[in-house]
Amino acid sequence: MNATEMQTQEMQAQELRSTVLKRLDRLTKPLGALGRIEELALHIACQLGEPRPRLRQPQMLVCAADHGVTAQGVSAFPAEVTRQMVLNMLAGGAAISVLARQHGLALTLADCGVRAVGAQALPEAVVDLRVPGLEQGTQDLSQGPAMRPEQAEQAMDNGAALLRRLPGNALLIGEMGIGNTSAAALLMARLTGLPLADCVGRGAGLDDAQLARKQAVLARALQANAPGSPLQTLAQLGGLEIATLAGAVRQALAERRVVVVDGFIASAAVAVLDALQPGAAAACVFSHASAESGHARWLQRLGVRPLLDLGLRLGEGSGAALAWPLLVSACALLDEMASFDSAGVSERDPA
Amino acid sequence: MNATEMQTQEMQAQELRSTVLKRLDRLTKPLGALGRIEELALHIACQLGEPRPRLRQPQMLVCAADHGVTAQGVSAFPAEVTRQMVLNMLAGGAAISVLARQHGLALTLADCGVRAVGAQALPEAVVDLRVPGLEQGTQDLSQGPAMRPEQAEQAMDNGAALLRRLPGNALLIGEMGIGNTSAAALLMARLTGLPLADCVGRGAGLDDAQLARKQAVLARALQANAPGSPLQTLAQLGGLEIATLAGAVRQALAERRVVVVDGFIASAAVAVLDALQPGAAAACVFSHASAESGHARWLQRLGVRPLLDLGLRLGEGSGAALAWPLLVSACALLDEMASFDSAGVSERDPA
Repeated sequence: MNATEMQTQEMQAQELRSTVLKRLDRLTKPLGALGRIEELALHIACQLGEPRPRLRQPQMLVCAADHGVTAQGVSAFPAEVTRQMVLNMLAGGAAISVLARQHGLALTLADCGVRAVGAQALPEAVVDLRVPGLEQGTQDLSQGPAMRPEQAEQAMDNGAALLRRLPGNALLIGEMGIGNTSAAALLMARLTGLPLADCVGRGAGLDDAQLARKQAVLARALQANAPGSPLQTLAQLGGLEIATLAGAVRQALAERRVVVVDGFIASAAVAVLDALQPGAAAACVFSHASAESGHARWLQRLGVRPLLDLGLRLGEGSGAALAWPLLVSACALLDEMASFDSAGVSERDPA
Repeated sequence: MNATEMQTQEMQAQELRSTVLKRLDRLTKPLGALGRIEELALHIACQLGEPRPRLRQPQMLVCAADHGVTAQGVSAFPAEVTRQMVLNMLAGGAAISVLARQHGLALTLADCGVRAVGAQALPEAVVDLRVPGLEQGTQDLSQGPAMRPEQAEQAMDNGAALLRRLPGNALLIGEMGIGNTSAAALLMARLTGLPLADCVGRGAGLDDAQLARKQAVLARALQANAPGSPLQTLAQLGGLEIATLAGAVRQALAERRVVVVDGFIASAAVAVLDALQPGAAAACVFSHASAESGHARWLQRLGVRPLLDLGLRLGEGSGAALAWPLLVSACALLDEMASFDSAGVSERDPA
């Protein structure tokens, strides 16, 4: 795109923004009375480039992978649960399965490096996005890099390629990976510069002693991995599901889809992307503030505000799915509400 | 009910509560990981008396009435807007019309004392719940009581009678009435004992000078109406839509329906009922913390926590409708999620 084209695009974006704001102010309600739902309508309209946006064929993408660091005892659940929960999602019994059904979200499950049990492969309905050399998950990041940079890039490209095959104009992201709050906490610490203690939480339910152990292991991980570029950081301290989601979001934003981010780990994927490509976080909708310690602060650092605050700490995309009807409402209100003129409603008395 | 029957009922309630809590803890997620959605599932189950509750035929009841105090210039919009907005809701162009359609909520509009324009009656689709002598709305409460106690009681009975005719096991409440943040603020001040300044907000959009005027008018109203019983307070400082909603909620709770409360004015109705019948507020679901100053603090005083905090200040039941899918999710998750046993998912490592 040359300078003139960029200028034209910027003018069109401003015109669209102004059109939507004007319409919001003409709808039969006091100015701004729908609060963040109005902001959401504006965001969706600008993201899709449509003055009366319609959300079509929303895709819930859940990326799953295992983490070598679980060998250090950083999680309340055994690593085999990653695989078991993918099968549970596939069978329809996981929280995200229930919520996706409720809201008509197409659910795609991706194996980004889920540890195998014997020779038993995951069913074909789980999309195979494994990265050569890391089929069983990442290396133990407390001993050195979780991945090589080219492996992290491969995972991102896998996410982007999958996204290109998915229809619709909205992407919701979730994840499954025992040990992945460890990776997300490390990414937070390195990307924000905040003390590790502010970034590490109880994950799926550690007690005080286990939390202390997790913090010690993660402190070693920071020592074992010297600071580097955002891609190097992702490779050293991230996870395969996080990298894959970052790539999927990169592609979704390039296609101007609406992106709805779940909790702590999904936010980590967007934070990495934002470091690679500033503005990425601002282009996403953050569904909720997780109960996982550190998440709310990270969102604040990213300059974004979550929609819900319901004490969720499940992952899987569950918070994104719970917030989804708010996006549908925002579009419906913008499109279907009457204006003061069309409804013959008197306007406010002049002050 | 005699003492033995009450004891039996209490035991059954405790058994149900324990059954639901046990099931929530067996579902394939870390303990408590669905946060407030789990609390919501428990609340709905206990309210309906069903271990796997199903929400049936949800009813959105919007009560509308006018307020004599608008003659004092306490609102940003002229009083005729109450009637115009009822017609807009009926025509499908109001925010609540759009949201009720989205979520399959049956919308009932009630005329509890909407000022007429000439001889033009409201269409028959609007339920006539007018109280004799107050067909055009309340008296000016800055000069004396808004209603006589028997008129307030009549309005409550009207609400209860209407509710008995509505099907389903869930009630969502909203309202329309230019001037009704004044009534709600006065009820808050009198019922909580908080200073008036903490209770009065900008309603549909007052500027600083108008807000000062509203506060002065409402201070006169407190002087013109001596403290009395909750019913006297409702009559003196309330509104017909508020009293009607209080009666509808009383009946809904007696029938053990789930009740979802909208914003500042709907909360006022429940707060009055709670003063008449302690425990009423705790039996309701509060959908959101309104941007109207004072609402969050009132909810705190009532000992309840709202689900959403989206800066809404519209009324009409819009916040209740926006929160509704969370209730549907809570029931679906409780009913449809797999357990650790049924899904073959490993449990947490012993600590």
